[in-house]
Amino acid sequence: MTSPENPAAADSGTTRLEAFSDGVFAIAITLLVLQIRLPDAHEIETRGGLGRTLLGLWPSYVGYVVSFMVAGIMWANHHNVIRLIARVDHGLIVWNLLLLLAISFTPFPTAVMAEHLPHAGWDRHVAVAFYCGSFTLTAFFYNLLWRHVARNRHLLRPHVTDAQVRAITRAYRPGTFLYGLATATAFFSVVAALALVFGLALFFILPRRGAHT
Amino acid sequence: MTSPENPAAADSGTTRLEAFSDGVFAIAITLLVLQIRLPDAHEIETRGGLGRTLLGLWPSYVGYVVSFMVAGIMWANHHNVIRLIARVDHGLIVWNLLLLLAISFTPFPTAVMAEHLPHAGWDRHVAVAFYCGSFTLTAFFYNLLWRHVARNRHLLRPHVTDAQVRAITRAYRPGTFLYGLATATAFFSVVAALALVFGLALFFILPRRGAHT
Amino acid sequence: MTSPENPAAADSGTTRLEAFSDGVFAIAITLLVLQIRLPDAHEIETRGGLGRTLLGLWPSYVGYVVSFMVAGIMWANHHNVIRLIARVDHGLIVWNLLLLLAISFTPFPTAVMAEHLPHAGWDRHVAVAFYCGSFTLTAFFYNLLWRHVARNRHLLRPHVTDAQVRAITRAYRPGTFLYGLATATAFFSVVAALALVFGLALFFILPRRGAHT
Amino acid sequence: MTSPENPAAADSGTTRLEAFSDGVFAIAITLLVLQIRLPDAHEIETRGGLGRTLLGLWPSYVGYVVSFMVAGIMWANHHNVIRLIARVDHGLIVWNLLLLLAISFTPFPTAVMAEHLPHAGWDRHVAVAFYCGSFTLTAFFYNLLWRHVARNRHLLRPHVTDAQVRAITRAYRPGTFLYGLATATAFFSVVAALALVFGLALFFILPRRGAHT
Repeated sequence: MTSPENPAAADSGTTRLEAFSDGVFAIAITLLVLQIRLPDAHEIETRGGLGRTLLGLWPSYVGYVVSFMVAGIMWANHHNVIRLIARVDHGLIVWNLLLLLAISFTPFPTAVMAEHLPHAGWDRHVAVAFYCGSFTLTAFFYNLLWRHVARNRHLLRPHVTDAQVRAITRAYRPGTFLYGLATATAFFSVVAALALVFGLALFFILPRRGAHT
Repeated sequence: MTSPENPAAADSGTTRLEAFSDGVFAIAITLLVLQIRLPDAHEIETRGGLGRTLLGLWPSYVGYVVSFMVAGIMWANHHNVIRLIARVDHGLIVWNLLLLLAISFTPFPTAVMAEHLPHAGWDRHVAVAFYCGSFTLTAFFYNLLWRHVARNRHLLRPHVTDAQVRAITRAYRPGTFLYGLATATAFFSVVAALALVFGLALFFILPRRGAHT
Repeated sequence: MTSPENPAAADSGTTRLEAFSDGVFAIAITLLVLQIRLPDAHEIETRGGLGRTLLGLWPSYVGYVVSFMVAGIMWANHHNVIRLIARVDHGLIVWNLLLLLAISFTPFPTAVMAEHLPHAGWDRHVAVAFYCGSFTLTAFFYNLLWRHVARNRHLLRPHVTDAQVRAITRAYRPGTFLYGLATATAFFSVVAALALVFGLALFFILPRRGAHT
Repeated sequence: MTSPENPAAADSGTTRLEAFSDGVFAIAITLLVLQIRLPDAHEIETRGGLGRTLLGLWPSYVGYVVSFMVAGIMWANHHNVIRLIARVDHGLIVWNLLLLLAISFTPFPTAVMAEHLPHAGWDRHVAVAFYCGSFTLTAFFYNLLWRHVARNRHLLRPHVTDAQVRAITRAYRPGTFLYGLATATAFFSVVAALALVFGLALFFILPRRGAHT
């Protein structure tokens, strides 16, 4: 993989890192649905039928959609970084593993958040802070991964310019701070914290001027 | 990925979108089995033994088979669309994420439907409408994805003709309407709604004249 | 994909079918572990501690290992068939979906079998028959998939000979019969039925003379 | 796949083995999160609120992180071995299946360990021994896989030297012994056993002199 005379083998490092990471992202995102649970027959009756019960599960749907979008966006970003990389070293494997560790954790804080969102009280704040905190951790590991790449320029494809590297560094830096801000905000206002996370996802989703990919 | 002088890199965009989407489809389809749950020992006795209990789970099997086929067909269609695409842009990533969000949700309405199918009453109608409604949403996002591609012809491979684009647009358009019709029908007749969804799947499965792929 | 002048595109059909199938096989096989459940603290005490409880879960381990090996072998066979295929048609996609439907179902009969294996009585026979029956179904769909390929020789790579096709037909034919035999045997002897399934897996695992792959 | 005149087909064996293995590793690693369960509302109150409850789940987090790192490292090693392989034979498929069987099992001992770690008593020792024991089994199968490759040199790419083979044999041999040592240690000291497993993971994570990949 390190021999320059065999480009096919050289690619295979990134290929398998991508395949493995894609797998983890895809599974973490798909496991989110398991956290949505239908109450039992007795509870459905208490809540006034299935229709109302399904509507009453809105916090689970909010959690599902927000986590799906955040993790999906992280996948898209991951994809944009990896395609600039020509070579995989030990550090990249380790940082990537730590990023995947944070991504895979997502279904748990999502479930905690969804369960406590409808009930007023301090625990609701804790649950949303825990939720935003897990995204902060993910964004943090994401930045460490990129920093490793930016500091080891020989890992990048030769055509990648310094300007591109700086542009990515600039684009990813606010992530940790903004998710961290949402985490802190959650202790004061649950709505404001979720609005911030949702806004960050929406900002990504909006159409962009210029070719993104 | 945008440089025309590097076709291998240019392909890698679609490759990873495919790999990620395949992963989500494969996992959503496989998680369906987790929704089939064996009643506990006491209930098995009440129902007259394991044999009868397993037969009594027929609504879960129906839900499993129908959802598997519908999601499998959506995978096959997705596959047919993506292979026409040469370039991945930001919009395609976003629409694809929304489609995957709907696909990943499938196990939940399947479980809701299977649990309420055997019990007469209004909730049975609600459950089947919820089930068909989730397919309507999936078909809707599917059409939005294709519309984005059809409007941005530079994303398509050069050999794709206008006639092919129109043929696909025509082929996909009825999906949202028919699943929507099944959703509305569920409020009047559960059997008619499920027959419609099943019929749509069967229609796809039947052998076709002419090369399909 | 149908144009002979574009071999790269022609391959991509099989590639994605493989990727999707690999995903389903890998997930079905990995979900098996979720069926192994630790009894609660009270039950652990009743059973005389964690050590004895873990040993007492042997039917779950047996189910895990047997299902893993059977599904793993089916993956290896699937892999051996797909690599002979040059072209994917509509029928192949449909038969492959039905095969995956049967494979994905495996975790459920495995759980049913593991739960009833330790308790004497008629339900134990039913559980093992249900378990072997699900493998029979998988083997049956597997044969239908291969029959479709064997009857549509243009789907095969040009270098595949008639002798190879006949050899595969002969090799796969007994599967459905032998798993079906195990299913019938389960009603008389649970041990004989499981021994047959285990023996079939072992037969595959044993080293072979001549190159297999 | 065995014909030397068709290198593309020859590669496809390793490709699919990699894809399938990557899938199993990725899923096993991602399923770990399902073992972290939020106690019910009543229990959360008893424990003094959500914040304390989430902190009290530390054994689950430890299990999650340790298992994730161990399985992630095994993936990285697997990746390093497979990229040296040019040809897949029957034995390699079987040994690889057995390795994946052990890897997929990981979520269960992780859950057992996390549940018993906070409670003093003999069961705590048993749980940690079971946990370390499952890693011992994985390392053992890993060595058998490599031994098969080392003894069948025609499976390796032609550029692989005897020195490389011996270096890998030497690097992997201690794994089984050290995890086995941790298993035995668990019966005397839970902390020492976990420290050993954690130390092994940390040893891998630390930056290395010389190019690793």
